[in-house]
Amino acid sequence: MLPLQTRGLLVVLSGPSGVGKGTVCSYLKHKHPDLIYSVSATTREKRPGEVEGVNYYFMSREDFIEMREKGEFLEWAEVYGNFYGTPRKAVEKNLEQGKDVILEIDIQGAMKVKEVFPEGIFIFLLPPSKEELEKRIKGRAADTPETIKHRLSCVDRELACIINYQYVVVNGEVDTAAEQIRAIISAEKCRVDRMACLNQKGGNIFD
Amino acid sequence: MLPLQTRGLLVVLSGPSGVGKGTVCSYLKHKHPDLIYSVSATTREKRPGEVEGVNYYFMSREDFIEMREKGEFLEWAEVYGNFYGTPRKAVEKNLEQGKDVILEIDIQGAMKVKEVFPEGIFIFLLPPSKEELEKRIKGRAADTPETIKHRLSCVDRELACIINYQYVVVNGEVDTAAEQIRAIISAEKCRVDRMACLNQKGGNIFD
Repeated sequence: MLPLQTRGLLVVLSGPSGVGKGTVCSYLKHKHPDLIYSVSATTREKRPGEVEGVNYYFMSREDFIEMREKGEFLEWAEVYGNFYGTPRKAVEKNLEQGKDVILEIDIQGAMKVKEVFPEGIFIFLLPPSKEELEKRIKGRAADTPETIKHRLSCVDRELACIINYQYVVVNGEVDTAAEQIRAIISAEKCRVDRMACLNQKGGNIFD
Repeated sequence: MLPLQTRGLLVVLSGPSGVGKGTVCSYLKHKHPDLIYSVSATTREKRPGEVEGVNYYFMSREDFIEMREKGEFLEWAEVYGNFYGTPRKAVEKNLEQGKDVILEIDIQGAMKVKEVFPEGIFIFLLPPSKEELEKRIKGRAADTPETIKHRLSCVDRELACIINYQYVVVNGEVDTAAEQIRAIISAEKCRVDRMACLNQKGGNIFD
């Protein structure tokens, strides 16, 4: 088979808080083990059961700041006093090897990634309705009433961000949503404007 | 499920002579009966076994010319003294009803369709290699040596047309090619810039 693309694709899977990004990613991981999942770096304490390089890359505040200043994060944020970031090198290495990388990230993070990585594929995960999203946010047992209230107040602003994305996938049924994401990746691999061999030669593909 | 798009998509499946457009279409028809296949109009004689409205819409030269002058063909061509064309109304009717329409057509025809229907999805079917394409062209028992010679002489020019398309699918294995086309259609349905509801309101998708 003619290799139309040698470099992998960065797939940024994002969407409003509570839409089910993690659930869709878990399903994708299980069904499509060929996709690579970007692992974030964090300065927060490792929790029991968490594995270095699987859940997070755990690092000191000093190391994080040093990496950040060298531009080694695709994006970073501070949440409740801890730093979180997406290490650029790990992503680049997989892409160079022709592997597709999934980055599951909130909307603010996705928009930062878009600035430095516009060639990524930006997918917005949408709830079937606003009511359903609110129901999902309220149903998260682990969240405090304050967190829930804050998340609900962000819904409209987060949904309006959809226009900054290329694709929208409705997360009604997780398997359908995951297969749509898989289809988007397959389709993007067929895009003529991603074909390096044509861009370099500008002519006949077999020359 | 939130209906992101109500209108169907026009999928133009094209590529060099001999690449196997018909074979891929037959496979798609069998596997994905939800897709509608555009039927051409022609002025040539109906052959034994051909069915009106299935193989072609058969019509007189006068009727064809009248339709052509009214702009009722998305594209048309004269081949060996007979007219062939894609009736616009049948395509539009299916698209209005939310059905996706596949138009299997040669490269010249596809480029004419692109002029009047730029919102279509233009897919270029590519052989795995130039040698394989030449082999397929030579292997067509029904063709005369002159036709084969003519087709071979067009190969380079036809392959160079790829840059006018959005997608390229390699027809190595017909089932893989057909599933890639299916994935492209699924992905295009998720494109934010195709979401009429957003384009009209420019804001929150659920407003």
